[in-house]
Amino acid sequence: MLTLHHLRIGRSIFTVWLLEEVGCEYQLKEYLRNPETMRAQDDLKAVHPLGKSPVIEDDDLMLTESGTITAYVLDKYDSEHRFHPRRDDLKTWARYHQWVTYAEGSVFAPLLLKMLTLRSTDHPVITPFSDAEIALHFTHITNQLGDKDYILGDTLSGADFGMAYMVSMAERLGQLEPYPSLQAYLDRCRARPAFIQAINKAVE
Amino acid sequence: MLTLHHLRIGRSIFTVWLLEEVGCEYQLKEYLRNPETMRAQDDLKAVHPLGKSPVIEDDDLMLTESGTITAYVLDKYDSEHRFHPRRDDLKTWARYHQWVTYAEGSVFAPLLLKMLTLRSTDHPVITPFSDAEIALHFTHITNQLGDKDYILGDTLSGADFGMAYMVSMAERLGQLEPYPSLQAYLDRCRARPAFIQAINKAVE
Repeated sequence: MLTLHHLRIGRSIFTVWLLEEVGCEYQLKEYLRNPETMRAQDDLKAVHPLGKSPVIEDDDLMLTESGTITAYVLDKYDSEHRFHPRRDDLKTWARYHQWVTYAEGSVFAPLLLKMLTLRSTDHPVITPFSDAEIALHFTHITNQLGDKDYILGDTLSGADFGMAYMVSMAERLGQLEPYPSLQAYLDRCRARPAFIQAINKAVE
Repeated sequence: MLTLHHLRIGRSIFTVWLLEEVGCEYQLKEYLRNPETMRAQDDLKAVHPLGKSPVIEDDDLMLTESGTITAYVLDKYDSEHRFHPRRDDLKTWARYHQWVTYAEGSVFAPLLLKMLTLRSTDHPVITPFSDAEIALHFTHITNQLGDKDYILGDTLSGADFGMAYMVSMAERLGQLEPYPSLQAYLDRCRARPAFIQAINKAVE
């Protein structure tokens, strides 16, 4: 059975959501943050040397990186292709995969910068840089979403797990107010039974 | 024919290298940075709204995100699987893909933080954060490399294009001195005929 190493509260709740949507069996191992630094502690480092979450284990496979975990879980458990396109249509797959990797590869860094400056103090270069990059990316995501329900259409796909995390991070950092359609998108994701089930299992 | 939109000088030189290794035909469209801000200019925004590079076009497909571009190019042109594993062995593929996405998804952000503080001034939280994260990731990459020639073994793979870029970025930021095996790895990548050809075509 697949095991998810889950650091409360953070990124990996969106992997719990993925597993709930897919409906596969899994075991949840929970870890707590250091209450002072709010960072992961040594128990997670004993699982994987980076000491970050999510990490999944499946027999002899240990896997990090949210986008890769999404790809692996969907390849293994979404055999009906409800959440990811078939790979034999390479262009459709590439367009989909671009949105899976865009979240971690491009949107995350400016949000991290914003989080670090909000926790402490502004910086003459970093603060305007992160403001401009957040505006660029969240405008781009807004345009992609348009009046669709989810990032790639009117049904949920693998691209939504990473993107909804980025939108939730922007909300937590007070950056979402200019993007009401993204707030509605996040609320739509949160209202899904699988998301509610994930919160019940992994947060409450 | 595939077109690569290439911003001089930056990330996309590693996509030129990928295309040279694969040996496919491609067209290179070059863009210059604003000499004052060192950032991309509006001509690249006319190609794609994010105004970043690399971007590839292949008939009606427009694709961003380095890791996805690597996956697409190898799926389409590396039919002999010289540089990427077959997908029917899902665990091997996932382990490989994890290293493709790790570069952009985890290693890049701390290097970006370091670049921004080096260009301007230190920050009481961001500077120690980026120092610790760079040490964490570059130790992890060093351990993964071990005494192999490339990240996943003694032959080049799709995981090396992104990773070599991260190592080159660390070199440029003066962060590579504690990691002599990574310097040797970068030098090994740069000595490959396809890398030299990429530099000749896209930099000189």
